[in-house]
Amino acid sequence: MATTGPEIEQLIQLLARMPGLGPRSARRAVLHLIKKKDSLMIPLSAALDRAVAAVTECSVCGNVDTVSPCHICADPRRAESGLLIVVEDVSDLWALERAGVGSVRYHVLGGVLSPLDGVGPDDLSIDSLIHRAPEFTEVVLAVNATVEGQTTAHYITDRLQPSGIRVTRLAHGVPVGGELDYLDEGTLSQALKARTLI
Amino acid sequence: MATTGPEIEQLIQLLARMPGLGPRSARRAVLHLIKKKDSLMIPLSAALDRAVAAVTECSVCGNVDTVSPCHICADPRRAESGLLIVVEDVSDLWALERAGVGSVRYHVLGGVLSPLDGVGPDDLSIDSLIHRAPEFTEVVLAVNATVEGQTTAHYITDRLQPSGIRVTRLAHGVPVGGELDYLDEGTLSQALKARTLI
Repeated sequence: MATTGPEIEQLIQLLARMPGLGPRSARRAVLHLIKKKDSLMIPLSAALDRAVAAVTECSVCGNVDTVSPCHICADPRRAESGLLIVVEDVSDLWALERAGVGSVRYHVLGGVLSPLDGVGPDDLSIDSLIHRAPEFTEVVLAVNATVEGQTTAHYITDRLQPSGIRVTRLAHGVPVGGELDYLDEGTLSQALKARTLI
Repeated sequence: MATTGPEIEQLIQLLARMPGLGPRSARRAVLHLIKKKDSLMIPLSAALDRAVAAVTECSVCGNVDTVSPCHICADPRRAESGLLIVVEDVSDLWALERAGVGSVRYHVLGGVLSPLDGVGPDDLSIDSLIHRAPEFTEVVLAVNATVEGQTTAHYITDRLQPSGIRVTRLAHGVPVGGELDYLDEGTLSQALKARTLI
């Protein structure tokens, strides 16, 4: 038995499929939208329509934008550092941008190598990375510190070797604000090995 | 410095104003939408457009629906029990419907009396409740067990007294599945007073 009209029920069901929202919070979100119909629901509806029409994938780096090449790839100042940061996903690119890492360019792999899930090199944007890399002076493999991430990093390092380009990875260590007591042994031992002069 | 196009940034900002979503989770939600453009983003955009056009408030009870009177008020079987359940908000109505409380009708107050916040009887749907109540055999005040909720319940009881209609409230007691140890003293003492024969 539906509590409300079919248009509202359908909206609840679709919102419940968003990450971080379940059936209950989707219901609450829809009531919130309806209460703020003029200030939130109608603008959101219009923004979603516009985003659907505008969104595209950058043909160079794989970033999500409304233009292609995206405005990071189109910005000539981004080439100055000569750094190309390789990430698994667009969300990682956005996280690095939020951190303000500076004038760098990116390359989104679209995932990591995972033989068990049937993800091979051809399923990721690796060929285009090898093709782009010679434009840069250094390739930073900012993949996640997981087994798949590290496997992918090794694979890319091997493929880039003939080009002689400098390949680096992010530093391991203690997160800023982190407490040693809560860190795993692997991180701690890496942080000690890579200790720096104060 | 925006990481992505203005249409996408605007969508993130609007989604971040939804309950349960912040700036970070809104960003994640938008990336999820873009990844599932055909299966989620486009249907959601269409559903939101349809809901904006269809949503309305029931002129009788205050429920949110796509027709007015809403389909609870329009359903003749809902009158059989003679029960009118008074709730603060549409979300409470939906919660009771999910609980399957049976063939009842509802009245949404749109809030509770709160002199400090400047909410008086005229700001709530109390006059229309007094007007409707004589159609029913019993009015259940299912307001929240807060000070404002209880004040509102007292006020409505006073206003309904001349009509001679039976006015009740929800039982206080131990939540089903709840542990005594975690319950406050008020609930426990109410639950003991209202103990029932097994």
